[in-house]
Amino acid sequence: MLTVQRLDQSDAQVVLAGARAKAQEIGVPMCIAVTDESGNLLAFERMDGGKIHSITLAQDKAFTAASARKATHEYHAGCVPGADNMLFGIHTAMAGRLCIVGGGLPIFVDGVCVGGVGLSSGTPSQDLECATAGVEHFLASIS
Amino acid sequence: MLTVQRLDQSDAQVVLAGARAKAQEIGVPMCIAVTDESGNLLAFERMDGGKIHSITLAQDKAFTAASARKATHEYHAGCVPGADNMLFGIHTAMAGRLCIVGGGLPIFVDGVCVGGVGLSSGTPSQDLECATAGVEHFLASIS
Amino acid sequence: MLTVQRLDQSDAQVVLAGARAKAQEIGVPMCIAVTDESGNLLAFERMDGGKIHSITLAQDKAFTAASARKATHEYHAGCVPGADNMLFGIHTAMAGRLCIVGGGLPIFVDGVCVGGVGLSSGTPSQDLECATAGVEHFLASIS
Amino acid sequence: MLTVQRLDQSDAQVVLAGARAKAQEIGVPMCIAVTDESGNLLAFERMDGGKIHSITLAQDKAFTAASARKATHEYHAGCVPGADNMLFGIHTAMAGRLCIVGGGLPIFVDGVCVGGVGLSSGTPSQDLECATAGVEHFLASIS
Repeated sequence: MLTVQRLDQSDAQVVLAGARAKAQEIGVPMCIAVTDESGNLLAFERMDGGKIHSITLAQDKAFTAASARKATHEYHAGCVPGADNMLFGIHTAMAGRLCIVGGGLPIFVDGVCVGGVGLSSGTPSQDLECATAGVEHFLASIS
Repeated sequence: MLTVQRLDQSDAQVVLAGARAKAQEIGVPMCIAVTDESGNLLAFERMDGGKIHSITLAQDKAFTAASARKATHEYHAGCVPGADNMLFGIHTAMAGRLCIVGGGLPIFVDGVCVGGVGLSSGTPSQDLECATAGVEHFLASIS
Repeated sequence: MLTVQRLDQSDAQVVLAGARAKAQEIGVPMCIAVTDESGNLLAFERMDGGKIHSITLAQDKAFTAASARKATHEYHAGCVPGADNMLFGIHTAMAGRLCIVGGGLPIFVDGVCVGGVGLSSGTPSQDLECATAGVEHFLASIS
Repeated sequence: MLTVQRLDQSDAQVVLAGARAKAQEIGVPMCIAVTDESGNLLAFERMDGGKIHSITLAQDKAFTAASARKATHEYHAGCVPGADNMLFGIHTAMAGRLCIVGGGLPIFVDGVCVGGVGLSSGTPSQDLECATAGVEHFLASIS
């Protein structure tokens, strides 16, 4: 039998709060999604002004990051056509749900992936900045 | 041009809070989804213990209730095979996203649909009870 | 080689106009879709107040009626579980796109199916009433 | 509560008329789709000779432009593999519904996105030319 560590709902709210605060700071209303370690949605928020297509993208980024235990921007770097790692093409998996656009981060505690967070509505760099703020806010809360 | 009223994020949180409180009262952890008047997700929460398949069901109930401006249990009543109103079969539309299981309610303010809420993880009656609590909590907050 | 007769865009607009006029008469804003004989969309209109989920349903009804050359309410009558014709279950085909809810009609000219029309936002009876008005308006225009 | 402005059906017809006139002028029959600000379809027309696959593409372009509040050709520019903004891969989202091919434009009034238009059947440049004509025709009608 396996014992699995994963974010609970209060943890998810801490991640959301950290990401939301950064989004407000940079002035970009975001869609924010938090999943557990299996990639299943725990919490979602579309800030007033967040984009409609980002509802899906934020969830897909969080799903990808958690389920692959890899940041979506790292996936992106490996998906250049012709790259040595032969990852190109993986972004069409699951009918495109596997998202390689920056803004999705896995959440690790003691080296173990316990969840994921995904942001969308800004540039990939802005999305990543807010996702990072969410993870850091959570890690600070448990340290 | 049309002028449309819809829930904002703080309204969505009030709906969530009302539904969550009722779920806690009856001791059934739920998935709770709130959409705007077009059926697009505003907020989602999976309470600790909420079921995985309910992540989709709660969202589909909220989507259906808001986009059709009709409670999902009312849809259900008309979908019995052979019922007079000939609605049977509508539940497979949109790849099954149109949900006729009780627990989804449209949210009306001054006779206008401004959003929807969907609950899942309990029985349809429990889901509906919590959805109702969410709507009532919101309506009380603006009265 | 086959020579196929199908609605052109001006025909589709005549169908739309007939359906729209009836919808206005009965006071139910509708989504209206017109397809060619292959079930491919020719024209669509969401009247102000038409429902969001009806965007898909109207198109699915028109598609089903044209591609199956059968009214959706006729399909419905045959889909009762246990019916002699053993049609029950067909409504899940094409991920639910095959719609058996009343409101979709094939359009026949000289015994040949040249297109389809689908309505949604009212009851199936209201939807069918408006679909019928659309077909009759078109047939009157070419007689 | 949020108050949102969106195109009504008569506005959508003005957009359609402007796009259609340009398509006739350049001699390329088009599929033309107009959505509201949430990306939900308001009106669609397949001109006689418009391509079948463009039925979906025109709608996806309009959906993408409205829901992301960004022209599809702008998305395209950022989606070249290896581009600095790291957007490559976003075009597979929503089962490929997120369309980065030119010909989709958001429609802004007073800085607010009120809808979107998408064209398909020509080259992306031709599609964009007609989309632009649709938007300009609408903006002229309300000025």
